[in-house]
Amino acid sequence: MGAQGFFLAVEGIDGSGKSGIVRSLAAHLGAEGRDVLVTREPGGTPEGEAIRGLVLAGADEAWDPMAELLLMTAARVQHVRRVIAPALAQGRVVISDRYAGSTLAYQGTGRGLSEAFIRTLHAEATGDLWPDLTLVLDLEAGIGLARSRRRLTGETLDEGRFESLDLAFHERIRAAFLAQAARDPGRHAVIDASGTPEEVQARACAALAPFLAQAPV
Amino acid sequence: MGAQGFFLAVEGIDGSGKSGIVRSLAAHLGAEGRDVLVTREPGGTPEGEAIRGLVLAGADEAWDPMAELLLMTAARVQHVRRVIAPALAQGRVVISDRYAGSTLAYQGTGRGLSEAFIRTLHAEATGDLWPDLTLVLDLEAGIGLARSRRRLTGETLDEGRFESLDLAFHERIRAAFLAQAARDPGRHAVIDASGTPEEVQARACAALAPFLAQAPV
Repeated sequence: MGAQGFFLAVEGIDGSGKSGIVRSLAAHLGAEGRDVLVTREPGGTPEGEAIRGLVLAGADEAWDPMAELLLMTAARVQHVRRVIAPALAQGRVVISDRYAGSTLAYQGTGRGLSEAFIRTLHAEATGDLWPDLTLVLDLEAGIGLARSRRRLTGETLDEGRFESLDLAFHERIRAAFLAQAARDPGRHAVIDASGTPEEVQARACAALAPFLAQAPV
Repeated sequence: MGAQGFFLAVEGIDGSGKSGIVRSLAAHLGAEGRDVLVTREPGGTPEGEAIRGLVLAGADEAWDPMAELLLMTAARVQHVRRVIAPALAQGRVVISDRYAGSTLAYQGTGRGLSEAFIRTLHAEATGDLWPDLTLVLDLEAGIGLARSRRRLTGETLDEGRFESLDLAFHERIRAAFLAQAARDPGRHAVIDASGTPEEVQARACAALAPFLAQAPV
């Protein structure tokens, strides 16, 4: 699938700068005359956004990890069938801020669910639609955590002040994204997400170029 | 699973009288001194009820059948892990108004999803928890449809006035429940749901008795 358009997912730990890169890549590709659709997960459809609301509104332990996986996948079904697949069929470039890689990282590595089951579920639920390219924004977990805390609370925290549990969790998620890229290098690119937004954007464009050059878009 | 308590599910087409039978069986078993928990699907937990709200609030075509299956199963995960399994572990009798049989009937037979996939998903999501007994309230589809229409609209409709599509759908759902019972007769009992509530209640008690006699409750 995705043969007629180009499907790009942007993944990475919290604070790795995904949203900014999605916006700047969309602007860059649009300026090249490409027809770009920007979307996000969880969400991307009215139904998916309602599911996102349910999951994010819950207290920490409200959702069993398996229920959370099924909710995320239900949202993805709506997203793929109503938004992503039709856009690809029209030959568009779809850029999604998070996709199935986040499910493997957060519900698999993070919450301990079986990666094999997550992949089986994904295959059945989406017709096994994977991005043509997943761009992994790679960043030290402590820096990502500092950035995302600052965004959430306005507080500037020294890395050393994080609870070690949070830092260890972010390190596991970072390692999960790197492992996904190592497992399927033909459809992943890992870029250094440290430095200025302009520097990261330049790396993202450079990583994307050879993939787009071979795409029918 | 369920070895310590007794898990009863009541299934059947709309209008077959499930809720009434659940209430009267609970009263009957309670009067015998059993510790009974009554619950329902979709729902049965705050999170499950929120999912129920999402699904039922949607327009007819809002949810892709696969997304609906995953939502129903997510609600069931919460229900099984937070409510049903703990109650069974305490040796209680759990009576659920609908359970996984409804998913096989409505999302499988009704909406055309693979029964094999629904069973795989159920096994993974719930630890393959099936009721000790599923009581199927069997009723001609036209009678059930008339009863549920009357409840929903207050209108009394002659059977002949139903759209044939609705009737055909209810007939397929009825057949699905009968097929489930035929496939696994040791854990199903089919009872005639026509006649007065007292008659149906007497049949339900008679069908339940031999199962309960062998249960550790």
